[in-house]
Parts: sequence; C-alpha cells; structure tokens
Amino acid sequence: MRLLDETVGRIVAQDPASRAAAKSRLDRLTMPHWALGRLMDLAEDLAGMTRSLRPPVERKAVVVMAGDHGVASEGVSRYPQEVTRQMVCNFVNGGAGINALARLAGARVIVIDMGVAGGLEGLAAEGKILSRRIGPGTRNIALGPAMRREDAVRCVEAGIEAALELAPEIDVFATGDMGIANTTPSSAIVAALTGAPAAEVTGRGTGIDDECLRGKIAVVEKVLEVNRPDPKDPLDVLAKVGGFEIGGIAGLILGAASLRKPVLVDGFISTAGALIACHLAPRATDYMIAAHLSVEMGHRIALRRLGKKPLLDLDLRLGEGTGAALAMPIVEGAVRVLSEVATFEEAAVSGADK
Amino acid sequence: MRLLDETVGRIVAQDPASRAAAKSRLDRLTMPHWALGRLMDLAEDLAGMTRSLRPPVERKAVVVMAGDHGVASEGVSRYPQEVTRQMVCNFVNGGAGINALARLAGARVIVIDMGVAGGLEGLAAEGKILSRRIGPGTRNIALGPAMRREDAVRCVEAGIEAALELAPEIDVFATGDMGIANTTPSSAIVAALTGAPAAEVTGRGTGIDDECLRGKIAVVEKVLEVNRPDPKDPLDVLAKVGGFEIGGIAGLILGAASLRKPVLVDGFISTAGALIACHLAPRATDYMIAAHLSVEMGHRIALRRLGKKPLLDLDLRLGEGTGAALAMPIVEGAVRVLSEVATFEEAAVSGADK
Repeated sequence: MRLLDETVGRIVAQDPASRAAAKSRLDRLTMPHWALGRLMDLAEDLAGMTRSLRPPVERKAVVVMAGDHGVASEGVSRYPQEVTRQMVCNFVNGGAGINALARLAGARVIVIDMGVAGGLEGLAAEGKILSRRIGPGTRNIALGPAMRREDAVRCVEAGIEAALELAPEIDVFATGDMGIANTTPSSAIVAALTGAPAAEVTGRGTGIDDECLRGKIAVVEKVLEVNRPDPKDPLDVLAKVGGFEIGGIAGLILGAASLRKPVLVDGFISTAGALIACHLAPRATDYMIAAHLSVEMGHRIALRRLGKKPLLDLDLRLGEGTGAALAMPIVEGAVRVLSEVATFEEAAVSGADK
Repeated sequence: MRLLDETVGRIVAQDPASRAAAKSRLDRLTMPHWALGRLMDLAEDLAGMTRSLRPPVERKAVVVMAGDHGVASEGVSRYPQEVTRQMVCNFVNGGAGINALARLAGARVIVIDMGVAGGLEGLAAEGKILSRRIGPGTRNIALGPAMRREDAVRCVEAGIEAALELAPEIDVFATGDMGIANTTPSSAIVAALTGAPAAEVTGRGTGIDDECLRGKIAVVEKVLEVNRPDPKDPLDVLAKVGGFEIGGIAGLILGAASLRKPVLVDGFISTAGALIACHLAPRATDYMIAAHLSVEMGHRIALRRLGKKPLLDLDLRLGEGTGAALAMPIVEGAVRVLSEVATFEEAAVSGADK
C-alpha cells in the first residue's frame, strides 16, 4: 500500500506555465488560428504533462496486461477461457493485432501476466513476458468478490512498478488488455463508479447475440447486487467486481502520471482501469489521452466521467491496446506541429487582419 | 481533352475477387469477428483497389496544388492574397503544417503551382516546385466565370499528368491545397453539384467573423446567380465557379484511380475537387479514401454525396493535405492487419462458439 500511496502523492496537475508557452507558440504558427484543432489542444496538453516545448514521444510502449476471470463460466463470452493463454502466446510470437499495429507505430509490446489460468511460467522464464501473477484468474464475481482487498492493492502496485521500471526507456505509455470475459467486470466497474444501470454499460464484447447479451446484463446486475461495491472506495470496487489486469492498467496509468508521462488509454477495459485510477488520484486524468471510442456501449459513459474526448472513432472493439497504438501517430503529430511548424515571423508570412 | 477522356475510360471498379479474398482472410484473424471495424473495411477496400492481398502503401506523396482566386477581392478571407505565394515558399522551406505531418508519415510533399499570383518561376527553375500554371489566378467569380472551359480541361489534365508522372515511385497519393479564398469556390462547387443552398455549404474558412460570414454567403449566392453553372456538366462547374488548384486535385484523383492506386482526399477544398472527379467518372470514388471531417460546414454534405465516411474527426480546417497526412498511418495500419495478423489456424487459437 505504501507504493500506491506514495505514487498517488506524487501526481500533480499539468504545468500551467508550459501549457501557456506552448499555446503562445501555437497561436503564432503559419496557419489560420488553431487550424489544426484538436491536434493543437493535444500539443498543449503534452507540453503541460511533460513540462517541455519539445515533449519527448519517440520511445513508446504498449503494456498489455493479461488475466483470467472466473465469471467466464457464466457464459458471457463467445470464446473459451483458454484463449487468454493462447493469445498471450500469439502476442509473444508477434501474430496478434497489437503486434502488427505496434510495429507500425514503432512501439514495443510488453506483456504482463497478471493472472492467466493455466500459467505461463515458460514464457516468463524465457523473458518473453513479465510475470506479476496475483492468482490463476479471479473468482466468479457473480458469486462473490473477485479477489481480496490486498490483492487489489497488489494488482495496482504491479502496474505502478511496471511504469517505474520501464520509465528510463519509455516516453509514452499505452494500456492494453487481454482476458476472456473481461468486458463483464469492466461493465460492473463502470456501473459501480458512474451509477449507470447495467443495461447502459453492458455490450456485446466478443460479439454475443441478443439472447446472450440479455444474460450478460443479468450477470452484471447480479454481480453488483451480490458484491455491493462501494463507489467511494475504488479499491473496494476493484477487489469486488474487478480483474487482475484491470488493476494492473490502473496502476500503469498512476505510475505514468506520477512520472509526468503521457499514457494512451485504449478501449473499454482500459477505460475501466482508468476510472479506478481517476478515483484513486483525480489528477491522473491530466496525463491520460483517450485513444478511441470503442463500439462497446459503456465506453462513452466511462469517457464522459473521465472528461475525455477520444482521438479516433473507428468501430474498434478488440482491446490489446490496438486503438492506443493506432493513435500514437496523432500524438507524435501534435508534437511535430508544436516543434517543427514555423511562426508567421520566422517564415515571413503575412498575418491575418485584426 | 484526349488525356482526360482516356483517363476516365481507364477507371474501373474495385476488383470483387480481391475484395473477397481479403475478406476471407480478415474473417479468420485471431480476434473476435471484424473486431478492428473500419480498419478492416479499409483493408478490404485497399485490396479491391490494388488487386493485392498485400496492398503496397509504403511510398506516399502529398501533392499540394496551389492557386490564387480573383474572388479574394470580395473580402472572403482574413488573409491577403500574397499569403498563397508566401506559403508556397514556406512549403519549400519545410516550415508549414503539411511538412511537419508529411515528415512524420514518411510522405513526400510535392507542390504544384497551378496559378499563383505573382509567379513562382524561381522555385520552379530550381526544381523545388512543379509549374503547371494556367494563369496568374482565376478571375473574380462574383463577376463572371473563373476561367475558360479549355482552361478547366487543362487544370484537370495537369493533375492527371502529375499522377502519371509520379506513379512509378508512389503507392498512395494524397491531395492538398493552398489558395487564399479557396473555400469560396469550393462552396460554390458543392452547392452547384449537390443542390444545397449556399448558406449550408459556406463556412468560416480562415476564421472570419459572423458579419464576414454573412457577406461570404451572399458572395457564394451571387457567384451561383451570375454564372449559373450546369450541375450535369462538371467541367462547366469547374470553369465557371472553380479554381485552378481544385481542377488539379480533381485530375490527380482521376489519375490515381486510373492507375488503381488509393488517393487520400484531404478536407473541404480537396473534397470539392473530388466531387468534380466523381461527376466526371463516378467509379473514381472506388479509389478515394476520405481522410477527415473538417470543421468547414459544407464538408459533411460533400462527403455524403461521395458516399464516404471520414477516418478522422479532429476539428481540422487547415488544408494543405494535413488531414490526409495524418490519416496515412491508418491506411498503413489497415494493410498491416491484413498482411501481418495470424489466423486462428496459423496461431492455434481456439475459435468462437457457433
């Protein structure tokens, strides 16, 4: 708990002076005022996060947190639980969506086993993944809490540690997730922390049909009834209705924020982790960049609570950090605009009328 | 006119067999079905355009067409006409928004003088820009036609020639524009070809205030009344209410389509050019990718007419090809997904239930 408390204590707001200096330069670039819109807003944010007019963004990592979920036995996913483990192997072999998109973005993919059923000791021993296992998957949250409170702290602290360890070689973090059935705990977290009804935050996940969706909504309702997570206590929410990888994502975000580094938040599961982070340390939102708006219906509600507008809206619903990887060039574009575009004076271009 | 007719004659639909082969692979990738949404739609399109399951997209160029507009004297822009020429110098010196974003995307920037007031002979002689000058700017379309019909043909053919000349070394084209006051002819083109009223397709351009916007709408209405462009004759529309660079953009798109190469269409001015191209050769739309939705209010109406959904929506309103450059990584991402992600069989991952 000490690492978590210390990390939360180190998270401070964006720097107003750096934001103002960036705005002053952006105001004078050779283009109609603020003509690159949200790219310029993002440049101002990045300056505020990093305290720099040349925010470093070149060294990028997508941290994919993997974990299993006891609630998979309630039939909330179209895939068997073994797919979590198989997909971790796919990540290691470079064959998954996140591998293709991270290669394009020039980002490293770092996979952390937060608690995959069946174990991945071989890959961890070979150094192909990091092991921060809390257990062999959460318990079934339709019957009781996912994990003990101390395990929730351990998840979050594992994410913080990952950020601290990677920090010397990473400028921009991105969150990713893998875990069969993990839209169900994410829906429960978003419902618990926003007060939205289960039916408004529960979607089709891997592509379940209408009947299965009705069942999934009933499961989320039951999860909330059985566990009664305390919305004022984010660790209680994580412990009762969360997941190991979701706690890891929350921790990664807190770690990045404490280091004053930007963190691209991927889709619905990542945003559930971001909500936990935001309730632990509201200022952490200053370092979050919402990468995209997912198809998963609760995502919009969760982003609204964070006060974030997503950069992309491409009907993605894969997770793994794929939306975050796709948004990385936009982050780099924002920095290029701030640092490479000439001002009216520099380029001897006539300004606008008053 | 012969080059234009021949080019239009060579434009054929996307290849259904290549689309089907791409879809078949995308259907089996290790992810929930079509979980990368519009990225997968785009991959299917790119396969259909290029007749390949590994669509080449590495060698990219933003072709920035520059031209001046007599209608600038009506007070429709916040900037003096000399800015067109100054910005071309800024492009050549690498200091503009498009330079920064094209560098990030790994794209060449090719500037073509279609008719900038004052001339740019020095830069053309040094080989820093291409010169395809039709004249020293269009005439004031509030008083009569922009150019002669044969000049409209010359504009479009200059764009086609640019595509043909660049084709051996370019896989993906992107359109860009520079021309003070060029949202006004673009609004007139969109109004003429879609039938939308001037007030619905005329926006703030460089950032004019309410009073100036009312005046600009009145100018567009007058332009349409004075010239009465024939909506069934896209060359008549271009000649009467268009611009040299807008015709060049239409030609570049037709050239790319005739070569079966994708072309990223930037913002409002580029989309006005794309509308001209679509009315000359409806199948050209098969090769267009709408890069982004601009703030400029007529853009949505023009995109709807083209049947295109933009990839990005970031409140951009700069032109120059900046939105197209920002969208290039998404195009490359689509290809990576198609060509690099493993199928369920390849990765030995369990499939979904039926």
